[in-house]
Amino acid sequence: MNANPKFLAETAHVDEAAIQPLPHSRKVYIEGSRADIQVPMREISQSDTPASFGAEKNPPIFVYDTSGPYTDPKAKIDIRAGLDPLRENWILERGDTEALPGPTSRYGREREADPGLAELRFHLKRRPRRAKTGRNVTQLHYARQGVVTPEMEFIAIRENQRIEGLPELYTRQHRGESFGAAIPKVITPEFVRDEVARGRAIIPANINHPETEPMIIGRNFLVKINANIGNSAVTSGIQEEVEKMTWAIRWGGDTVMDLSTGSNIHETREWIIRNSPVPIGTVPIYQALEKVDGKAEELTWEMFRDTLIEQAEQGVDYFTIHAGVRLPFIPYTAKRMTGIVSRGGSIMAKWCLAHHQESFLYTRFEEICEIMKAYDVAFSLGDGLRPGSIYDANDEAQIAELRTLGELTDIAWKHDVQVMIEGPGHVPMQLIKENMDLQLKYCKEAPFYTLGPLTTDIAPGYDHITSAIGAAMIGWFGTAMLCYVTPKEHLGLPNKTDVKDGIMAYKIAAHAADLAKGHPGVQVRDNALSKARFEFRWEDQFNLGFDPDKAREFHDETLPQEGAKLAHFCSMCGPHFCSMKITQDVRDYAATHGMSEADALVKGMEEKSVQFVKSGGEIYQKA
Amino acid sequence: MNANPKFLAETAHVDEAAIQPLPHSRKVYIEGSRADIQVPMREISQSDTPASFGAEKNPPIFVYDTSGPYTDPKAKIDIRAGLDPLRENWILERGDTEALPGPTSRYGREREADPGLAELRFHLKRRPRRAKTGRNVTQLHYARQGVVTPEMEFIAIRENQRIEGLPELYTRQHRGESFGAAIPKVITPEFVRDEVARGRAIIPANINHPETEPMIIGRNFLVKINANIGNSAVTSGIQEEVEKMTWAIRWGGDTVMDLSTGSNIHETREWIIRNSPVPIGTVPIYQALEKVDGKAEELTWEMFRDTLIEQAEQGVDYFTIHAGVRLPFIPYTAKRMTGIVSRGGSIMAKWCLAHHQESFLYTRFEEICEIMKAYDVAFSLGDGLRPGSIYDANDEAQIAELRTLGELTDIAWKHDVQVMIEGPGHVPMQLIKENMDLQLKYCKEAPFYTLGPLTTDIAPGYDHITSAIGAAMIGWFGTAMLCYVTPKEHLGLPNKTDVKDGIMAYKIAAHAADLAKGHPGVQVRDNALSKARFEFRWEDQFNLGFDPDKAREFHDETLPQEGAKLAHFCSMCGPHFCSMKITQDVRDYAATHGMSEADALVKGMEEKSVQFVKSGGEIYQKA
Repeated sequence: MNANPKFLAETAHVDEAAIQPLPHSRKVYIEGSRADIQVPMREISQSDTPASFGAEKNPPIFVYDTSGPYTDPKAKIDIRAGLDPLRENWILERGDTEALPGPTSRYGREREADPGLAELRFHLKRRPRRAKTGRNVTQLHYARQGVVTPEMEFIAIRENQRIEGLPELYTRQHRGESFGAAIPKVITPEFVRDEVARGRAIIPANINHPETEPMIIGRNFLVKINANIGNSAVTSGIQEEVEKMTWAIRWGGDTVMDLSTGSNIHETREWIIRNSPVPIGTVPIYQALEKVDGKAEELTWEMFRDTLIEQAEQGVDYFTIHAGVRLPFIPYTAKRMTGIVSRGGSIMAKWCLAHHQESFLYTRFEEICEIMKAYDVAFSLGDGLRPGSIYDANDEAQIAELRTLGELTDIAWKHDVQVMIEGPGHVPMQLIKENMDLQLKYCKEAPFYTLGPLTTDIAPGYDHITSAIGAAMIGWFGTAMLCYVTPKEHLGLPNKTDVKDGIMAYKIAAHAADLAKGHPGVQVRDNALSKARFEFRWEDQFNLGFDPDKAREFHDETLPQEGAKLAHFCSMCGPHFCSMKITQDVRDYAATHGMSEADALVKGMEEKSVQFVKSGGEIYQKA
Repeated sequence: MNANPKFLAETAHVDEAAIQPLPHSRKVYIEGSRADIQVPMREISQSDTPASFGAEKNPPIFVYDTSGPYTDPKAKIDIRAGLDPLRENWILERGDTEALPGPTSRYGREREADPGLAELRFHLKRRPRRAKTGRNVTQLHYARQGVVTPEMEFIAIRENQRIEGLPELYTRQHRGESFGAAIPKVITPEFVRDEVARGRAIIPANINHPETEPMIIGRNFLVKINANIGNSAVTSGIQEEVEKMTWAIRWGGDTVMDLSTGSNIHETREWIIRNSPVPIGTVPIYQALEKVDGKAEELTWEMFRDTLIEQAEQGVDYFTIHAGVRLPFIPYTAKRMTGIVSRGGSIMAKWCLAHHQESFLYTRFEEICEIMKAYDVAFSLGDGLRPGSIYDANDEAQIAELRTLGELTDIAWKHDVQVMIEGPGHVPMQLIKENMDLQLKYCKEAPFYTLGPLTTDIAPGYDHITSAIGAAMIGWFGTAMLCYVTPKEHLGLPNKTDVKDGIMAYKIAAHAADLAKGHPGVQVRDNALSKARFEFRWEDQFNLGFDPDKAREFHDETLPQEGAKLAHFCSMCGPHFCSMKITQDVRDYAATHGMSEADALVKGMEEKSVQFVKSGGEIYQKA
């Protein structure tokens, strides 16, 4: 086992690779109804169509941007100071929160008071906030009161595709099949509010994480992806984890979960949250377990409660709580191929068995709701009994838990606490739709947040792909957020390369799902890239893709000369023959002869074809 | 432009990386009804379950093996001599073919006579064969005559999962939904014959490629994958292409297409075929175009015909023929985003436009059938008008061509020539099923062979993933063979790394499809791997996967010590806490207390839960 590399706050630094703007991209902000609503977008500029294809200007393409201020050259980035608290004023304005003198959790205070941690502590000058007594500060609560928050307006602007004024070639799109989801052509702040009020979408936005750029998770919005990071007892340190976060959001991570289980979890989390423009999720039971040295049976409600408060006051935006792992369900898992594969699930199973008692997450669920609504932490109700193998897919343990998560959703909603539901896992393709349908039914359309699912078990090293297949499908069927799986799944902890590979596979799955649902305007980027591809605008083809760096690198492997990127051919066919070029001949033909002549041609030829098929039938005589 | 590296026949050598058996794998042969039917399988041995999980023996797992003699340490591999002609005797026995004095194509004779090619020529001692006058030597013809060929018996043995005697934990499997496909529990030679006779499956098996290990392509069999290789005018040489072939079949390529468009296509192909145990496909029009220096308008039926004969006598097992690209359909493509992206399609489009005539592939289709049946070359009716972008998916050009391919299928079948149909391309998820259904309808269930489809255009560098999603889905819906897409798609020619990455993505897609269809026994490997995973048998987990090397490499990146592979934990959770370990506690509990007690527990707890939910509802009072 390697010790964690020594981390010192004073040497913390931003990852230079994460703060360059993407090629030919510019950060732009769209202002809302007030000057402090500045919604970031990435504008990708395009070059002109070459003369041989018609010499036209090509419009810039605007894409959803998760990368935060890091890719804005005008932003001052200082990891040691953290990001600007974008939402601070909105939170203060509402007047329903109060600043605390300091952390109110016992553990938070201990860590703050420990001089041994000074070297690695993030130096936060802001005091934690909490709801005033009797107040509920969740976005769900506001939504149900009819209040459109600045967060909701921000999201409405952010979710719309910026396609005004684009030619029809860019905006034409196939119809989708969205299985009952209803995505409006234009997302309004009121629509956002309504979806949140209905419980069909959540806005993870802890009042102690004012650095977030608001985002929404719900099946009538763009499909989101989550990237997991976090150290373990055997690997990784704070600097690396912050780098994984900035790397993950650069490539499109919509939320990041810090799943640290090693040392200094509290301090690691602080560094991540203070520097994260995306919501941060955690599984608080992991840290609780660390506090009792890995002895699940020694967990208590009191120390778990203290952990929730500790993390809520740091600004965690959603908690995975495995409250559906109930004592009576545990025996079901004995018959499984792979038992309980969720860490959180197995911790609670062990506790339940040791005490022969119902899980305190379940029995204390109302008390947990009280904490959640005091900071606006959203529930991510964990699927502690998710199948860990194709064999175990959709079994009684999984379904029993899902039904329980539906019950708990009702309880959370009664408290106006936001809820999403976690889902599997390993599921073969033919069982994916059933999973989604049961979730919608039992959990009354609360957003589904699935890990994959992996559609086969037999490709360790490639589980980003086994799972991207299932993720794309379940995203189409209605899952609101896809938790990425990296190539290291089942084998090791992801490094930065794995994080990017996982993100890419999941950006693809999410976008494929958005296309399939017919999400208005999302095909613009496909159309733009394909137009660039057809017109041999290599640079534009690279830049419009999810990963310009990789596309360029692959192209240059075969044709490294700079001139090749202006060439009207590529390495696949070579200079003498090119199918794209021939299509241009077809177009020229159609233009010269006019499509009416072409149509005449069609008719004449179709007759001839009938003749031919007929004669073919006659000429042939079976030997 | 780089010149091709100098290749000399005398220095040709096998790729050492391709001839090692996979770890803990052993080549075994299953004998058929006669001693010369020896069907290869790969036997993966497993280690024993460790004591903490019950100390049991684990059976070996048998998997379908495409790698040919290369992974058999007993086989003598000599690239310069080629593989043993496994099927030679079966072909001779049938007595319906004759040896020719030498190549009968003009081009074949020219190349043979050219002393300048001596250095790079494969030295084949066997003479080409052809059907005797008036005879038809296709597997379809035999099938329709009621003859079960040794090829058919070989395939029947090969297609069955070897699961006899395995415990129920290995053989239990979810039911599938196969959309009308009907896969029997046991594949018999008669079933193979019947499917071939029906035209629902093909056996690509040119009489001049006796080195092949027979395999079948049809939707009532395992989903197959094809790997494309081939040089272009700007890159790669003969040694590299042979290496790509041996590399592709090592990792699971069921067929290989040689899409060379550069120099020495004829000689490159000879080297590939002579060393390939899997069927080889080509697109003859590519070579024809080279013969007229890339000037499509100079193509003639006569020289194309000569090319077909040249390649048929070398042993190409299937020809992609773009006979559905008809003159009247060409104007449809003018309205497209990306026109005609198929090279073959655009060559023919250019020819049609230049001559203002119907394609000779279409008008001469019967004559092509005459050639096909004289060597048993199967048609792969090319989708020259496949969509090259999401925008163009399922448009009139594509569908018009598909309908034509259906007409041509009828004609080929009248000649007892085997046919499969090529399919798209770029198709968003919601349009994939429609593609499959139209193909089944128009082409009367002739096997579908699809490229992807790619489910989005915006991930250049990752199109193995954008397309694996579509491939898995369309494979489930009924596609018989999936043509791989590598990460280099749209950007460059695949190198060996890309070939493997493409294969892996497609092995996953094909297997996920087999699982979803409920193909009997295919879940055994998933079950075995998951059992190994659960029991911390790291080596077995690596070895049962598609890519043991990668799995081991990833594991060792975090925990390189040899001891870690015996450890009952991994880098994700670390030694202090492990979910798998806790599941074992659950099992011990269930074993100690008996499941009846557990059941009692369930009942008691369920009552309590109802109580709790009720009280939850009552306690909460909206503020």
